[in-house]
Amino acid sequence: MAEMYSTPHEILYYEADVTGKLSLPMIFNLVVLSSTKQSVDLGVGPKFTHENGVGWIILQEDMKINRRPVDGEQVILQTMAKEFNPFFAKRLYRILDQAGNVLVDVDAFYTMVDMEKRKVARIPQAMVDAYQADQVKRIPRLAEPTKFEEGMEADQVQEYAVRFSDIDSNQHVNNSKYPDWMQDVLGADFITSHEPTAVNIKYEQEVRLGEYVRSEVKIVGNTTLHQIWANGTLSAEAEITWTEL
Amino acid sequence: MAEMYSTPHEILYYEADVTGKLSLPMIFNLVVLSSTKQSVDLGVGPKFTHENGVGWIILQEDMKINRRPVDGEQVILQTMAKEFNPFFAKRLYRILDQAGNVLVDVDAFYTMVDMEKRKVARIPQAMVDAYQADQVKRIPRLAEPTKFEEGMEADQVQEYAVRFSDIDSNQHVNNSKYPDWMQDVLGADFITSHEPTAVNIKYEQEVRLGEYVRSEVKIVGNTTLHQIWANGTLSAEAEITWTEL
Repeated sequence: MAEMYSTPHEILYYEADVTGKLSLPMIFNLVVLSSTKQSVDLGVGPKFTHENGVGWIILQEDMKINRRPVDGEQVILQTMAKEFNPFFAKRLYRILDQAGNVLVDVDAFYTMVDMEKRKVARIPQAMVDAYQADQVKRIPRLAEPTKFEEGMEADQVQEYAVRFSDIDSNQHVNNSKYPDWMQDVLGADFITSHEPTAVNIKYEQEVRLGEYVRSEVKIVGNTTLHQIWANGTLSAEAEITWTEL
Repeated sequence: MAEMYSTPHEILYYEADVTGKLSLPMIFNLVVLSSTKQSVDLGVGPKFTHENGVGWIILQEDMKINRRPVDGEQVILQTMAKEFNPFFAKRLYRILDQAGNVLVDVDAFYTMVDMEKRKVARIPQAMVDAYQADQVKRIPRLAEPTKFEEGMEADQVQEYAVRFSDIDSNQHVNNSKYPDWMQDVLGADFITSHEPTAVNIKYEQEVRLGEYVRSEVKIVGNTTLHQIWANGTLSAEAEITWTEL
């Protein structure tokens, strides 16, 4: 049974959005930060994966947001490797406040890829051992986000040129940029009058520098259904639940 | 005579770019972080300025970059309020490595604005006292960046839709987004084969949500001259010096 890893973090002003709360895209960066730190501590961090020619790819994140912490707030980032099989891994993430309340809770589903061949690779046994994850035959998939089907008419659409700063050291668009494009297409009036309470996002295809993406959204009551397209290919889809402020 | 304020910071993976080094836009966020923390410590932080209906506006930053720190590196952020007069202020910023080497050195020139009227406001005496800044009649201006004159033909041009995540709690585009647009227009081949060693940037006009900006660059040897335009208005100009890798 894996142990929970904890690391403290202070919300910095440039991690907050116009409301002074931790921005939605930055929540995605902060949760991954905890597993990166855990991996480095256990000797199976980026150096290890690079040397082994492999890399983690996030397939899906299912997130509940109880409260977004504010600029200057001290939080605790937690993570635990839950279940591994030879090709897939499930990880739990949490952001806690100083009183131990769960602010954000995430189930994440990963696969490992051969960085050169860009296809699924076997997870090195040394990693499974380091994380002390439960080794299972089959990992139950996460619930799918409600589909925004191709052909449904989008309520709002916006195109974005991928910027150099959108690319991370994996040479593709950082996964925090998808929620960035997904919230932006809703417009300032919607985002500043609604608080996100849940995000279920599936990453389908990586996006690279020099590409243009199209962010499409269908608004269904307090739920928004999202698709991100690049070069005619579906790159990500998501369902976001909101509370009106 | 003001004292130097210091605060530690660890370079996080999402603050690094594709090269694993602290990204150029994030350097701009980190330096401002130190003065925000100093201001909060001295009781003249965002809460004080908001209550007084004023806000700091950065007019210019003149930056020397000796080395960009890497993902995971522990650095020290330093700042000092150098000179104040009733309407303008000069501040020094530095990023040091663990051995005390100066990695980044910035002279910054600020003014204070009335947030409601959006015009220049008198700097509250309580702030000048708190920072122990030298009070002077006239603050020498920083050297101007070499001009990319209107009418000169740009070598490369790119348009960007301002994203919700580009806006900070001052309700306008965060100042780190200008170097973001300025490096992006150069293209991945240029940015990954050149290292920035100096940036002299002047902010002319704030940019707001819903606007489109045009980033123009003129390449003159190892120097690039930049203009950012929004709605036919010059929003920022800069001169960036590069070393070929």
